[in-house]
Amino acid sequence: MADTKYVYTFGDGKADGNTTQKELLGGKGANLAEMSRIGLPVPAGFTITTEVCTYFYDNDRTYPPELKDQVNAAIADAEKCMGKKYGDPTNPLLLSCRSGARESMPGMMDTVLNIGINEEVVQALIKQSGNEHFAWDSYRRLIQMYGDVVLGLKPENKNQDDHFEVILDAAREKEGVEHEAGLSVAAIKQIVVDFKKVIKDHAGIDFPEDPMEQLWGCIGAVFGSWGNDRAAVYRRMNGIPHSWGTATNVQAMVFGNLGDTCATGVGLTRNCSDGTPGFCGDYLINAQGEDVVAGTRTPKRVEETLQQDKPEAFEQLTNIGKTLEQHYKDVQDIEFTVEDGKVWMLQTRNAKRTGFAAVRIAVDLVNEGLIDAKTALEKRRIPADDLNQLLQPIFNPSDKEQAQKDNRLLAKGINAGPGAATGQIVFHASDAEETYNKDNDVQLILVRKETSPEDLRGMKVAKGILTAFGGASSHAALVSRQMGKTCVCGCDSLNIDYEAGTVTVAGQVLKGGDWISVDGFTGEVFAGKIETSPSEVMEVMTGNMKPEESEVYQRYAQLMAWADEHRKLNVRANTESHDAEISLQLGAEGVGLCRTEHMFFDHLDEMREMIFSTTVEDREKALAKLIKFQRDDFTHLFKVMAGKAVTIRLLDPPLHEFLSEHHMHEDPALAGKLAKTFGVTEEDVKRRVAELVESNPMLGHRGCRLGIVYPEITAMQARAILEAAVACKKEGIEVLPEIMIPLAGYKAEVDNQTAVIKATAAKVFDEMGESVEYMTGTMIEIPRAALTAGEIADTAEFFSFGTNDLTQTGLGISRDDYKGFIGYYTENDIMPADPFQTVDQTGIGRLMKIAVADGRETRPDLKIGICGEHGGDPKSVYFCHEIGLNYVSCSPRRIPIARLAAAQAAVEAG
Amino acid sequence: MADTKYVYTFGDGKADGNTTQKELLGGKGANLAEMSRIGLPVPAGFTITTEVCTYFYDNDRTYPPELKDQVNAAIADAEKCMGKKYGDPTNPLLLSCRSGARESMPGMMDTVLNIGINEEVVQALIKQSGNEHFAWDSYRRLIQMYGDVVLGLKPENKNQDDHFEVILDAAREKEGVEHEAGLSVAAIKQIVVDFKKVIKDHAGIDFPEDPMEQLWGCIGAVFGSWGNDRAAVYRRMNGIPHSWGTATNVQAMVFGNLGDTCATGVGLTRNCSDGTPGFCGDYLINAQGEDVVAGTRTPKRVEETLQQDKPEAFEQLTNIGKTLEQHYKDVQDIEFTVEDGKVWMLQTRNAKRTGFAAVRIAVDLVNEGLIDAKTALEKRRIPADDLNQLLQPIFNPSDKEQAQKDNRLLAKGINAGPGAATGQIVFHASDAEETYNKDNDVQLILVRKETSPEDLRGMKVAKGILTAFGGASSHAALVSRQMGKTCVCGCDSLNIDYEAGTVTVAGQVLKGGDWISVDGFTGEVFAGKIETSPSEVMEVMTGNMKPEESEVYQRYAQLMAWADEHRKLNVRANTESHDAEISLQLGAEGVGLCRTEHMFFDHLDEMREMIFSTTVEDREKALAKLIKFQRDDFTHLFKVMAGKAVTIRLLDPPLHEFLSEHHMHEDPALAGKLAKTFGVTEEDVKRRVAELVESNPMLGHRGCRLGIVYPEITAMQARAILEAAVACKKEGIEVLPEIMIPLAGYKAEVDNQTAVIKATAAKVFDEMGESVEYMTGTMIEIPRAALTAGEIADTAEFFSFGTNDLTQTGLGISRDDYKGFIGYYTENDIMPADPFQTVDQTGIGRLMKIAVADGRETRPDLKIGICGEHGGDPKSVYFCHEIGLNYVSCSPRRIPIARLAAAQAAVEAG
Repeated sequence: MADTKYVYTFGDGKADGNTTQKELLGGKGANLAEMSRIGLPVPAGFTITTEVCTYFYDNDRTYPPELKDQVNAAIADAEKCMGKKYGDPTNPLLLSCRSGARESMPGMMDTVLNIGINEEVVQALIKQSGNEHFAWDSYRRLIQMYGDVVLGLKPENKNQDDHFEVILDAAREKEGVEHEAGLSVAAIKQIVVDFKKVIKDHAGIDFPEDPMEQLWGCIGAVFGSWGNDRAAVYRRMNGIPHSWGTATNVQAMVFGNLGDTCATGVGLTRNCSDGTPGFCGDYLINAQGEDVVAGTRTPKRVEETLQQDKPEAFEQLTNIGKTLEQHYKDVQDIEFTVEDGKVWMLQTRNAKRTGFAAVRIAVDLVNEGLIDAKTALEKRRIPADDLNQLLQPIFNPSDKEQAQKDNRLLAKGINAGPGAATGQIVFHASDAEETYNKDNDVQLILVRKETSPEDLRGMKVAKGILTAFGGASSHAALVSRQMGKTCVCGCDSLNIDYEAGTVTVAGQVLKGGDWISVDGFTGEVFAGKIETSPSEVMEVMTGNMKPEESEVYQRYAQLMAWADEHRKLNVRANTESHDAEISLQLGAEGVGLCRTEHMFFDHLDEMREMIFSTTVEDREKALAKLIKFQRDDFTHLFKVMAGKAVTIRLLDPPLHEFLSEHHMHEDPALAGKLAKTFGVTEEDVKRRVAELVESNPMLGHRGCRLGIVYPEITAMQARAILEAAVACKKEGIEVLPEIMIPLAGYKAEVDNQTAVIKATAAKVFDEMGESVEYMTGTMIEIPRAALTAGEIADTAEFFSFGTNDLTQTGLGISRDDYKGFIGYYTENDIMPADPFQTVDQTGIGRLMKIAVADGRETRPDLKIGICGEHGGDPKSVYFCHEIGLNYVSCSPRRIPIARLAAAQAAVEAG
Repeated sequence: MADTKYVYTFGDGKADGNTTQKELLGGKGANLAEMSRIGLPVPAGFTITTEVCTYFYDNDRTYPPELKDQVNAAIADAEKCMGKKYGDPTNPLLLSCRSGARESMPGMMDTVLNIGINEEVVQALIKQSGNEHFAWDSYRRLIQMYGDVVLGLKPENKNQDDHFEVILDAAREKEGVEHEAGLSVAAIKQIVVDFKKVIKDHAGIDFPEDPMEQLWGCIGAVFGSWGNDRAAVYRRMNGIPHSWGTATNVQAMVFGNLGDTCATGVGLTRNCSDGTPGFCGDYLINAQGEDVVAGTRTPKRVEETLQQDKPEAFEQLTNIGKTLEQHYKDVQDIEFTVEDGKVWMLQTRNAKRTGFAAVRIAVDLVNEGLIDAKTALEKRRIPADDLNQLLQPIFNPSDKEQAQKDNRLLAKGINAGPGAATGQIVFHASDAEETYNKDNDVQLILVRKETSPEDLRGMKVAKGILTAFGGASSHAALVSRQMGKTCVCGCDSLNIDYEAGTVTVAGQVLKGGDWISVDGFTGEVFAGKIETSPSEVMEVMTGNMKPEESEVYQRYAQLMAWADEHRKLNVRANTESHDAEISLQLGAEGVGLCRTEHMFFDHLDEMREMIFSTTVEDREKALAKLIKFQRDDFTHLFKVMAGKAVTIRLLDPPLHEFLSEHHMHEDPALAGKLAKTFGVTEEDVKRRVAELVESNPMLGHRGCRLGIVYPEITAMQARAILEAAVACKKEGIEVLPEIMIPLAGYKAEVDNQTAVIKATAAKVFDEMGESVEYMTGTMIEIPRAALTAGEIADTAEFFSFGTNDLTQTGLGISRDDYKGFIGYYTENDIMPADPFQTVDQTGIGRLMKIAVADGRETRPDLKIGICGEHGGDPKSVYFCHEIGLNYVSCSPRRIPIARLAAAQAAVEAG
């Protein structure tokens, strides 16, 4: 049996590996091989595979026995390519040693350069280069990196002494120079001596003179750095499995620091902030790679000065850039070194980009003929969530940078509603409304411990919402996303004192009226004002800008057209009447969830009259006062959504949301007022309030449980819906109402409510002399509903997954109460992700699959959608595509994201 | 194709049907046929099948076309048997028409007697019987029953006039007689005229003279009565499907009212109150069947006077009784009529019996050789729940009867903890404890709006618990059953005023110290004292009585021995240390759930110290103070359960159960005390309390979510368990600890906690120089745990279904909050039963089946039990047997019930 191949060489137009082998060779190694294959100038070297990393961790940090010989052979190959010999005292080859995982983990792992220098070799370098400064400085750098990386002398935190830097600081000060580059050769020679003493003193060993010992030390350090803390944290944050491991790349050194004919730099084959075409990058003349990143010298811009500085190198680079884009079909992020006028490639990879750039680049590449539209839709090119950057206001980058420099960052919460908002602090919804009514241009940030349905009107007029409590699925977060408001929630370092009218954070006491800025993309909260720019796409959609004035919009529209062409899933809006138009603009193909709660919250008096009624007749009388408002709302919605399906959910919240201790507390006169209105005693009012209290309202008397015990509510709502529908039909408008029963767990519940709806429909159609087609269906938001979907589908004509509640019940986790452990859980890999952001496919997903299979077994043409917040989460949309739903429904602002994600799911599936 | 056979005849030693055909012929019809077959004297007649009932309701209350001919033929058969002719003006046969469903629904449906009399026939009757009074009275009865039943003239409620009774009352008053039997013939003849007028006036038709019209009217009325409200309510309460339908029995009349040679009665082949052998029953001389039931005349006792009154009839009856028991292998409940000295059988069925009687009869029948032990265990012979009657104190029947007669019934709540208790009202647990400490013989009833963990000590010393709120699974109910206390909960007509120290109910204001009595079997609450008797079985088990002194105990022990022989399921106790001995007495084969909460509630100071700790070290210090108590408790439990498995659940409740607004409210000085103790401000205390508040605590930071964020709690508990276990082992006691992780939903949670336990175990075993075998496993009480059981079983060595929480989450229903709709839901067939009493097999059961299958797929020898309250519910036990669990675990008092139910499940399965 042949030995496993653990080492892959590259160089001189050849390579063992290629770009498809990222799992085995890591991204860097695979692309070094690929570049070598396609004839680009790559210093020769070899990649030790990720399998060795796995072996290393499985075998107490040792290597496979066959590795040593393979490495020796590979060094010999590199020596041949480069015409030098590793460790040779006359013509020495120097090596670098770099990590390279399957996915880039920038700065997380270790690198050592200039490996192979010792007291003999340094003399050879002096002779060959004729540059004593270069040779000693290279030696100095090796010892420092070896000490930091291999021997672990780099201090963990900034309070500890960095022995090497202390020596360098002293030398610089002594010679009065700013950079190491300015030090005299004598000084550097002394530093080498001092550095070796640091190693002896602090690591307890001599710096190894043997080049092979140096190399193996570096290889071990690179594999070891996969396991360090910051790398583990990074992987967790970015969903990279710990099991992947890194490869190690050993490569011949080329030098950007041999003199002014040399340079080193990084570059992008086109701009990745805004997507503008053309090579751009940073370079430093006479420098080594680290110097560009270290920031001790300010690099120059390739696109600005390189053409003058080094016209040949500039030409080589732009040609290489074009070759790379042609070959990789995507923007590349590269590292290069210019040695004596020749450009050497040290790295290439697909470039990270902003959402803005992603859209522009994808559309441009299609228009340039490099890729087709289907390829442009790939997930990795435009993470669907990044579309948000085109749809929300953002901080002007320079203003935000300034705020960061001024240390105005106050706190960080959960980035619950994307966008950027700046405004004056207001603590109460009523104050916000009042202020807004005096001046519609006022910019307000509503700052609350948490929000509740009474805050809705205040949220509407605020630019942004900031709360101290509640997670990504709290009321504040849900409603903000629904309204498209910027929101940061669960910012628990805020100490809000409503009575004093202050919020204390980071040692500052802010009052109402003070300016504050919240970044809903990042969760950051800043003191003071930061200027924002509106979204051009939204400006066009709301008629403030013409499509032809905005290239951003045009590219967005092009991308969306491609997405719509490829996707299988329909996309609907979770919207009520007032957001119907914008939903349509954003591409809604119907309404998947029209909540009807607000109609009741807007008429608390009538609702409370119902609560105090003791007979069906009295309840019907109270409800009759609400019907007009509901009918008007539905009529508007049907008109806007003409020809499209509109799913309306019957009343869902428990009655205590309309009357509770909280209300009595907020308005001490309320008990008296209610007592007077309903002709009872204050004691009676308090008793009724007490009766309505629930220990676990999420699992209480709500949803269809209300409509079943009080069928008059269902009847009133069905009447409002169907009267509106018939009226629209009479005006020639096509209406497709779908009446949705919330929180059902038993078929009998669906039967009961369906019967009430059908009886009401018969009456309405009879009274109005005209009928409409309508459907009745149910939310699947309780595990039992999913588990008995086969029975339920016998009555329900459609299902809509309410994945918020299904997640709460299926996981036994209240989204309002998970703050105490969710942080710990995601940080410690107990949950792979926040299940309220992305559908838990293993658990909740299994319930969904059961419901889809059993439901369609009973009713093959069962229409199934999702209307939980997950409907706008790309990963969840992929899942919905996989399990064969008909549509996803989400907040209006997330519709484009869902459209793109749906297309990506379809493209992925082939 | 032959016509469907809709009519089954019987009589004269022959029959078309037999006793196995209850589905088709109903219970009465099948047994009339059977009795006829085995030669017992049954008046001839026929049964119209339940299929006709189904047809009747499916076809707008019409009959299959072939029915008429079949009925005519059957009448002819009966005429031949009885030697009379229906409607004949000289030798008329009279008929009765009675309902008869598959299961007996006593008094729920309708009966008409004496059918076939008209103006001509009455004259023939006079001639044949020579008894003018009998003939006219029979006619009078027919008209009245026909009016009431067929024409619907019986008033719905007692406030409406009963026209027939008004006329009878007037006649009795006029002639000065007490009963109709005393009326003169002239009076009765006038009544017949008046009754016919009532029918004309109120039903708008003439009383039909045509005997066939009479008969068909009666048949229609009987089928129609299946659909009446009270029958529907009865079926719902008794779990009888509406789809079954009733049969109709038409049978020749025999007369107990032809004179003093005649009688009518009901009887039991042995006493069904206490099970004593020997025929017993009630009879009336010269009377018709209804008279016995109507209660207008006081019947005589068969066993006391019939032998003297009518020796021949007595002999016939006792022989018939023996024949029936021999034939049916069970006690029979019969109806009979003596006509001119000859006994005729009108009905036989298996007799209903009390739990006491059921046990005695089953054991006696085995000892008499009629049945074997396996048969004695059949569900229908001893409903397992009825064993409660042998295990709990009961009211002395005569004292309870007196209380009812005295109108002392105050209210009815939910029968949450079986037993009977009488005592003085006390409103606060602390008062109860104080009073008890002064006088251990005091009898107290703890009366609360609801109970919480702080009430535990008060509940312990009270004889019974009565609450205004909370359902069958509320804290009060759960704990009461756990403690074996009598409990009535959710008694919402109680108006409790803690400040005034009063409870107002049924217009009475009761104070602390007033006597009250609660019946935990029925949910009844009585004012004043009702004497109770203790359970003999419990007296023996607690050593207050010797086994040989109690026949009740001996029979119980015999039955339990048979049950243990047949059952496959093991039965364990949900118990803590203090109930371990009694659990063993009651047959526990281990502990399925030892809750550890009380150990923390008993040491609130230390727990609060932990809550206020900000470092792991401080928390560990606080917890260290608890370890001794826990270890001692576990040691006791292990000793009592030597050689048996003991499952201990780690801490489950959320931290706010140890410190909340409620505590601050109860003790206004608490904030100050805590602030002083922990060196913080009162503001800090309040903030911490506020932090702990949860919106939906059921779905909050509890269970293993606590142990994961605070691993020191888990470590401390694991240490206490394992130190106790090792110490016991050193004493030579066999210990089998099973450490159970609560509320897991993710495998990673189980992994995390298992790792903490294993690490602690390694330390403990090392420190103590000895190790014990132990298992680690998890509750399956969240849908996700069931759905990912395959993964979880990779780590968990056992599963225990926590069906309380699994039902709450899987159904999305909080047991504390379902009061608003559960009544409506069960009354209206939306839920077949309270899912917190009996496992919802369709929904929750499906999750359980998934968990069993997937868990055992991963780990074939996975031990699986149930420790929710359902573990003591017979129907749920049957289900657990079916799906292959290893054991059920329940409150100590329910262990015998679970043992019997487990045996019944096994016997049923064959």
